Amino acid sequence: MTTTSHPTGQFERSERTKLRRFPDRANYDRDEVYAVLDEALVCHMGYQVEDQPYVIPTLCVRVGDALYLHGSAASRSLRNMNAAPRVCVTATIIDGLVLARTAFNHSINYRSVVVFGEAESVTDPDEKLLALKQFTDAVVDERWSEVRAPTTQELKATEILKVELLEAVMKVRNAPPADEPEHFEDDTWAGVVPVGLTFYPPVPDPALPDHIQPSATLTEFIERERPHPFAGMRKR
Amino acid sequence: MTTTSHPTGQFERSERTKLRRFPDRANYDRDEVYAVLDEALVCHMGYQVEDQPYVIPTLCVRVGDALYLHGSAASRSLRNMNAAPRVCVTATIIDGLVLARTAFNHSINYRSVVVFGEAESVTDPDEKLLALKQFTDAVVDERWSEVRAPTTQELKATEILKVELLEAVMKVRNAPPADEPEHFEDDTWAGVVPVGLTFYPPVPDPALPDHIQPSATLTEFIERERPHPFAGMRKR
Repeated sequence: MTTTSHPTGQFERSERTKLRRFPDRANYDRDEVYAVLDEALVCHMGYQVEDQPYVIPTLCVRVGDALYLHGSAASRSLRNMNAAPRVCVTATIIDGLVLARTAFNHSINYRSVVVFGEAESVTDPDEKLLALKQFTDAVVDERWSEVRAPTTQELKATEILKVELLEAVMKVRNAPPADEPEHFEDDTWAGVVPVGLTFYPPVPDPALPDHIQPSATLTEFIERERPHPFAGMRKR
Repeated sequence: MTTTSHPTGQFERSERTKLRRFPDRANYDRDEVYAVLDEALVCHMGYQVEDQPYVIPTLCVRVGDALYLHGSAASRSLRNMNAAPRVCVTATIIDGLVLARTAFNHSINYRSVVVFGEAESVTDPDEKLLALKQFTDAVVDERWSEVRAPTTQELKATEILKVELLEAVMKVRNAPPADEPEHFEDDTWAGVVPVGLTFYPPVPDPALPDHIQPSATLTEFIERERPHPFAGMRKR
């Protein structure tokens, strides 16, 4: 949920990022890839230890042309990864349920980004601090300015992984059901049910003194109208 | 989004499913693991080709003690996997934004299930048909009964992966922020912002005849009150 300036242009297609089955669903535009990474709160990081793949969910933020993964979930993997730092990080946003006239054509409208790269542990305190700011603001906009900044000890205890954004592809399905024209007149409703995240009224920490209320920024964040997730549906 | 009868009890802990960092977040109860798999619409499947891990999002449903992954997204992986069928499938549900008094303690409340196993291609037509029914009903409850069943040709074209549920663990964070008591009086709101999926009014396929309206079942599904995702928050 972060944006800073970055080079525009396209990711180069690689053997790994070339889509074979639905090549028209691929998008290599950096701006569009970054928009998905910025919107996704959680990504799934895949790595391997010997012959075994592992996939763990973790907070992710982008700063410029790098992706940062929060280390608490990744700390065990961090250690394993010294031997095999190659990762695949995937962020997926579900936009709609695709209801077709036939069971076979049921699907999901989604945007997902797959990043291939090497994960390295961030050790520079300034870089850690910046990443931690982005993680905090990724949870809620501008939260960083409302909370206590990390102590030196907390910064030390923060484990953060960085993956340079060198090889990535976005996949998009954003269309009506793929039924054949001979079924258009079938007596079955067909279309898309848009899906989005909703934030509910905040639940105070039981230890919070009664007089402390959510800030205006937080309340606005929770109540904000979010753009209709289905606004961009392509016409048939 | 599927339930059928299954043996109760616990998954055995393995080297891979033992949580080291937050062992109290682990849950090996089959019922609870299955509830997460049933609620998650999409999972992330990790596999590897030579030294490279891949993570792809795909529809998942559970039938008894097996997880089925929809093949269109997985078809390429399917072929790669003949060489290395070992997979890790992870399903994650985000329940809340954890707003602490300190940047360091910001987090997410979530439930995630990690499954280790081997993926095999489903070839039996009856098993395929059952899995396709579950996929369709996973998109929207009871959708299967409203749509045309697959033809023999469609069934043949459907690629489905199956992973037996033999080794799995659920991880849960479902608690207030982990701030230290000396910060309880800080002048910062702290607590949890619950998060859930919302379904919006359905958008008809542009090719749909005007007189076909969504069924009562579909309308009820979209408008249904969903249990408050934060209902189960553990007290400090």
